[in-house]
Amino acid sequence: MTKPLEGIRVLDLTQVLAGPFCCRLMGDMGADVIKVEQPGTGDPSRNFPPKYKDLESYYYLGLNGNKRSLTLNFREDSAKETFYDLVKTADVMVENYRPSVPPRLGIDYDTIHKINPKMVYCSISGFGHEGAPDPNRPAFDTTIQASGGVMSVIGQPGQPPSTMGSPVGDLAGAYAALSGILAALIDRDRNGEGRHVDIALLDTMLTLQAYIGQYYLLFGSEPGPLGSTHPTNVPVAALQCKDGRWVQIQFANQPLYMQLANKLAEMYPDEYQDLPNDPRFATPGDRLKHKAEIIEFLGGVFSKKTADEWDSELGNQMPVARINTIAESFAEQSVINRNMTPTVQHPTLGEYRIIGNPLKMGQEEEYKAAPGLGQHTDELLSELGYDGAKVQALKDSGAV
Amino acid sequence: MTKPLEGIRVLDLTQVLAGPFCCRLMGDMGADVIKVEQPGTGDPSRNFPPKYKDLESYYYLGLNGNKRSLTLNFREDSAKETFYDLVKTADVMVENYRPSVPPRLGIDYDTIHKINPKMVYCSISGFGHEGAPDPNRPAFDTTIQASGGVMSVIGQPGQPPSTMGSPVGDLAGAYAALSGILAALIDRDRNGEGRHVDIALLDTMLTLQAYIGQYYLLFGSEPGPLGSTHPTNVPVAALQCKDGRWVQIQFANQPLYMQLANKLAEMYPDEYQDLPNDPRFATPGDRLKHKAEIIEFLGGVFSKKTADEWDSELGNQMPVARINTIAESFAEQSVINRNMTPTVQHPTLGEYRIIGNPLKMGQEEEYKAAPGLGQHTDELLSELGYDGAKVQALKDSGAV
Repeated sequence: MTKPLEGIRVLDLTQVLAGPFCCRLMGDMGADVIKVEQPGTGDPSRNFPPKYKDLESYYYLGLNGNKRSLTLNFREDSAKETFYDLVKTADVMVENYRPSVPPRLGIDYDTIHKINPKMVYCSISGFGHEGAPDPNRPAFDTTIQASGGVMSVIGQPGQPPSTMGSPVGDLAGAYAALSGILAALIDRDRNGEGRHVDIALLDTMLTLQAYIGQYYLLFGSEPGPLGSTHPTNVPVAALQCKDGRWVQIQFANQPLYMQLANKLAEMYPDEYQDLPNDPRFATPGDRLKHKAEIIEFLGGVFSKKTADEWDSELGNQMPVARINTIAESFAEQSVINRNMTPTVQHPTLGEYRIIGNPLKMGQEEEYKAAPGLGQHTDELLSELGYDGAKVQALKDSGAV
Repeated sequence: MTKPLEGIRVLDLTQVLAGPFCCRLMGDMGADVIKVEQPGTGDPSRNFPPKYKDLESYYYLGLNGNKRSLTLNFREDSAKETFYDLVKTADVMVENYRPSVPPRLGIDYDTIHKINPKMVYCSISGFGHEGAPDPNRPAFDTTIQASGGVMSVIGQPGQPPSTMGSPVGDLAGAYAALSGILAALIDRDRNGEGRHVDIALLDTMLTLQAYIGQYYLLFGSEPGPLGSTHPTNVPVAALQCKDGRWVQIQFANQPLYMQLANKLAEMYPDEYQDLPNDPRFATPGDRLKHKAEIIEFLGGVFSKKTADEWDSELGNQMPVARINTIAESFAEQSVINRNMTPTVQHPTLGEYRIIGNPLKMGQEEEYKAAPGLGQHTDELLSELGYDGAKVQALKDSGAV
């Protein structure tokens, strides 16, 4: 099938993580994504250590495939004019500067909307452009996790705080931005006008609280550090197995819990034949009342076999999963079959793997390596119809 | 401005978390979302303890606003026919059953596509419909976090595993599904045909690894539990302050780090006037080499003032944020100003707050309370043009 965003052109004025990932997903879906970067330096993530084969940063390579790179120095008026020419050809623009920056560069929403009223313009910032008392306050992934309340429920009680490990503060914002952009495009295609999609990482982080936040809003309760458990759904827990490794279980509903109780009674009749009838654990409410007790009990049961044994004996029918390393997560068969670590070809780095596009919809998948800084400047200027003399003048002035 | 998804009709056949949240966001953006539920029981999350005012579950109330509820018992042919009539009127259908269930109910992609070729049909499952060797393996939020490798980097070294605290295994899938649906709608509007969007929670979880996964794919390295730190970006850490509370810092680039070093030298000249020139901490690479040292050093500095003092003295210029409780996260001024905890009116529960829509794009916001089971059955059957006798027959047979 066709790639769903074929024919859509995206101007990617973003750096580092949330914006670049959002734009890469559009590239993965067939959009023509043009990454606009400062000559000489480019996206700062190009210089994050360590560099792969001493050439390009691992960080940049993962998030910028399926894009073309154009350099533009907005301090030069001719660069700005070039950008405005590009604006006339594009459908989407994404930026993740601090909110004070785009007006200074002459690329804020109002300016761009005047040049191309059909443009969907997305800003990704920590606290939002509209409504934030201090929109320019610096915000990065983990400080957003901290402000967002989520860190208060992570980790073991009595231990120092932990983050979510992976950069969800940024990436949830990336997915939210992508959704907002696509909704605005649907509306634009019907009503003829683009709009300003104003995504705040902090807003998105709050939505991740989901039932935890809702619990607070209705009952005023703070669960505190949850470890591997759930505030109201029991039993949910990491259990250590005979070989020292851990499995995570989530018996989220009554039929599944009864399946577990019956299975354990069948496997170990001498010890657990009464488990299915244990009144302490009979209903979701009973199990919630005896949360520590049931988790301790199951800890004893799960120490009888290795993690792989539990995974293979119960995992097909029940929510029991080995806690994977990063390597093991990429080796899951569904992950391999669904092309989630495709190989790309890089002109100087050769072949390497990246994380694939999770938006599977029957389209042909194609992954191009992240571009070198300004790799497509000539190509793009030529597509704009600029002649050799004009291109040379841009180069001579340092505008590109 | 208009709500971007006005005029789009969504059939929501989902339960519990990922699907219901995805569909609620579409409702928040103006889509007409019809939640189709089993008569008598409905979405199982309606019965998750605890219930607010002993009536509706906190869990259900948070995730199902801006929807209408219709009951249909798919075991009755007349219910199936009613559903097919509805399919002809809709743009999007979302389901998050185990993959073996939709064919059994007669509502699988192939069946629905024949009835309405323009329908965008989205499945959300643990491992995907296509390519998963065992697509029906049970999967819930935390088991997906476990399989996805992410749990291996959460928490303090030497401690038992922790989850991400909030249900990101489900919610990242919800945002991915939303993006996939909207991309498919854009394509449908241009090419005339809907398609099957096949979202696997495990795929989405892998994308959240971002640079951690990319680090592994290029260098084969497993960071292990990161606590509050970053594998390569230094200093990123939670620091305990004078009052026992914590702030999270993320000095993600060189100018910001130099700003911190200069500020501390200015605040405490007797102790730290040489900090900006300390060769151990001069460049990102130097700080990465001396990661434990710089975090310990900053721990000493931050113990000199309270968390609120650091937050107010540095937070406006630098990425320093108090680690908020859930309550504090909702009290952030930008969150209040951006209507992120809107109040809804419920016919029997009165007023309560929910978490708002993070997709801000200048639209008027409207939040309706989550519907009672089957609250809109009569209304929807009447909209389908069914007369009183037909409606009564459906009721008598238990089809609705």
